[in-house]
Amino acid sequence: MSELTEYQGKATMEKITSLAKRRGFVFQSSEIYGGQSGAWDYGPLGIELKNRIQAMWWKEMTRLHDNIVGLDAAIFMHPRTWEASGHVENFTDPLVDCKKCKARFRTDMISEENLAAKKCPDCGGELTDARNFNLMFKSHIGPAEDTASIIYLRPETAQGIYVNYKNIIQSNRMKIPFGIAQVGKAFRNEIVTKNFIFRTCEFEQMEMQYFVKPGTDEECFNDWRNQRWAYYEKLGVKMDHLRWYKHEKLAHYAKDAYDIEYLFPMGWRELEGIHNRTNYDLGRHAEFSGKDMQYIDQDNNNERYIPFIIETSAGLTRNVLMILCDAYDEEQVAEKGNDDDWRTVLRFHPDLAPVTVAILPLMKKDGLAEMAQDIRKNLQDDYATDYDQSGAIGRRYRRQDEAGTPFCVTVDYESKEDKTVTLRFRDSMEQVRVPIEELSTRLRQEIKSYKRIK
Amino acid sequence: MSELTEYQGKATMEKITSLAKRRGFVFQSSEIYGGQSGAWDYGPLGIELKNRIQAMWWKEMTRLHDNIVGLDAAIFMHPRTWEASGHVENFTDPLVDCKKCKARFRTDMISEENLAAKKCPDCGGELTDARNFNLMFKSHIGPAEDTASIIYLRPETAQGIYVNYKNIIQSNRMKIPFGIAQVGKAFRNEIVTKNFIFRTCEFEQMEMQYFVKPGTDEECFNDWRNQRWAYYEKLGVKMDHLRWYKHEKLAHYAKDAYDIEYLFPMGWRELEGIHNRTNYDLGRHAEFSGKDMQYIDQDNNNERYIPFIIETSAGLTRNVLMILCDAYDEEQVAEKGNDDDWRTVLRFHPDLAPVTVAILPLMKKDGLAEMAQDIRKNLQDDYATDYDQSGAIGRRYRRQDEAGTPFCVTVDYESKEDKTVTLRFRDSMEQVRVPIEELSTRLRQEIKSYKRIK
Repeated sequence: MSELTEYQGKATMEKITSLAKRRGFVFQSSEIYGGQSGAWDYGPLGIELKNRIQAMWWKEMTRLHDNIVGLDAAIFMHPRTWEASGHVENFTDPLVDCKKCKARFRTDMISEENLAAKKCPDCGGELTDARNFNLMFKSHIGPAEDTASIIYLRPETAQGIYVNYKNIIQSNRMKIPFGIAQVGKAFRNEIVTKNFIFRTCEFEQMEMQYFVKPGTDEECFNDWRNQRWAYYEKLGVKMDHLRWYKHEKLAHYAKDAYDIEYLFPMGWRELEGIHNRTNYDLGRHAEFSGKDMQYIDQDNNNERYIPFIIETSAGLTRNVLMILCDAYDEEQVAEKGNDDDWRTVLRFHPDLAPVTVAILPLMKKDGLAEMAQDIRKNLQDDYATDYDQSGAIGRRYRRQDEAGTPFCVTVDYESKEDKTVTLRFRDSMEQVRVPIEELSTRLRQEIKSYKRIK
Repeated sequence: MSELTEYQGKATMEKITSLAKRRGFVFQSSEIYGGQSGAWDYGPLGIELKNRIQAMWWKEMTRLHDNIVGLDAAIFMHPRTWEASGHVENFTDPLVDCKKCKARFRTDMISEENLAAKKCPDCGGELTDARNFNLMFKSHIGPAEDTASIIYLRPETAQGIYVNYKNIIQSNRMKIPFGIAQVGKAFRNEIVTKNFIFRTCEFEQMEMQYFVKPGTDEECFNDWRNQRWAYYEKLGVKMDHLRWYKHEKLAHYAKDAYDIEYLFPMGWRELEGIHNRTNYDLGRHAEFSGKDMQYIDQDNNNERYIPFIIETSAGLTRNVLMILCDAYDEEQVAEKGNDDDWRTVLRFHPDLAPVTVAILPLMKKDGLAEMAQDIRKNLQDDYATDYDQSGAIGRRYRRQDEAGTPFCVTVDYESKEDKTVTLRFRDSMEQVRVPIEELSTRLRQEIKSYKRIK
């Protein structure tokens, strides 16, 4: 029996990163050029996983809520947006330079002693005074590089919703309370990017901004806290790996703020924030644009007010990391041809798994490969399929376990006789015989009734 | 009868733009600040339409082709990428300035006489010499604004595929021929953005790069031309609005190139390009990265070669405009309460329509609204639904026609008696009675058997 090591059976960031690269979930960006820091590329399995996480959130928000609609605002917004939001003035990190070795630090990364003594933690050289460094990426639009043509890459997606809220009320006849959901990229010039895809310069957010009447905001805030917690329950993640964190120190626009934190291998970290943003942003946009940002309540004597906003803001790419960590498992198994062995398995919910069903002919010859291909063709319009005919069947199961494929279908000599196949379950490794003509229906049932067993 | 005008019944860019804004397909970006040129925001109907176009392309490419996998590379790539691709050197437009009025022009926008005389077409002032202006957006990553930290916003998505091609071969055990599909944003600092969402600075591409053995590239190129033509047939667009355009003047990397053009209201314009890009890009990345970019054919004596690439490159946002124009129709109708009237209808394929089925109670009272809401709840897990209870039923049908909703379900007093509803078809405006319990199955059949009638 193989000897147990300290890390055996446990997820670590090294294991997750290594599996992610090996199986094509996530690659280092521009790896052939030594990598681009702060950016990652999602490979064949990674983009499918990300797409499914996004689709599930989108369906939850827009399709299953009668009063929430979608939006996809551009990354390029008018620069006044970021003056109104306060980002031009306040979205900064304080930095110091070492005059001797030229190293650069965020002041909160330096010990208080070094900071007070103005001593470089690397070489002991003298540090400059702290200066504020804005985290927005800046570029120029149009041919001239003057201030009139400055354009920022949005540092958050929320402002695209705020500046469109009146357009959406008008085009979609929305009445308060209502919400606007959006998924999209945002960019922050983070000095320290770390923990794989957890903190990056280019990332994706899934945000929903809910517009409510002032005075109803506290009740609504609590309701959304409950809804978002229930959502992660529905995703099937380990609930003892989730907890609430209440912000004691609030942002200038916020009245109340809670994070849902997840227990990543590197510790408890923010997964999603639920914020009562008050009417701060809409008020600022009214001020900076000169437009009336008040809502007119036609059902209530045309009462006018600037709505309060309850925000639920989740990281999409951070959710991908969470799902990878949450699904990761190693277990000792005794399966045919693999007695006394360890397997790595990603226990994705079938709705999230990049491949739903893999079709495996026991042998390439004797018409088994053709039969397997036919089965695949019949399934691929409804399911994400994979096909693998190379190597021992035990090794092929292991490969699918590592990809998180919940179901394998094996075509063998018996299949030619009685038109049945083996359906193998990822989690339990149990196998049952299923008639080929019932396969699609059976898969649908198994997906609907899926319960995580570990 | 209303008098026919020249534009009645025909799509024009003004009508499309106006409908898009009125119904929430597309808004001007940052409109409250006077708009951000070159960028557009997709509203509630627009993002659903865009998502469905993207999903259909993605399924066609990845799920229905056994040897094509997906990728989602970052917008931020290592700057050497753009030296290798030739963009730093060659991706430029020649510009001239007027020394008097300071206006700026692309040289191809000025008449040859004015250019030769160096006279400003606006004020007659003297023009500067032409200088090359690079179309890539440039920013800086990390706190220092020096050359070492330059980062470009990718001007095309293709290079993200090329730099990852060996990673994907390894992680997903791909064998040539195989393809990599990707949907994502790209950015070009276009001096002239026009025709609504047709030419913009921020846009989305749907690209598939197919890696083949040199010598098989011409056959493969023709095969992909056929496949992409067949795809638009499957989308159900007007085939007499599509044509081939063969490039006589080829880009430096290309061996052969055809565009699929669509007859937009402003004329024939490129919708998608199919290009034989040879082994140019991979060869350049081998040169600039020092990495071996050869494919090793293990089934063929480990033969080594740099594959040729056949590219199918479609604009996603351009496809949105195409589908809007293609679906747009005006017709004179005589429907209950609307005799002798015109309607605007978007004849989307049901798989693309932002809303699949709208549930409309004839009256709010007498329990009809509750009944309609129950029906909606039963359908919304499988279909994109809308609910509308305000205004005359004829007006509500018109609103759904304008949104392109293929099916309306009307709940009336008869519904309470016999548990049936009216199913109304967008295109024919025909109505049939359907038992409520059969509604979901009936909708599925209607979607599968949909044929455009006009």
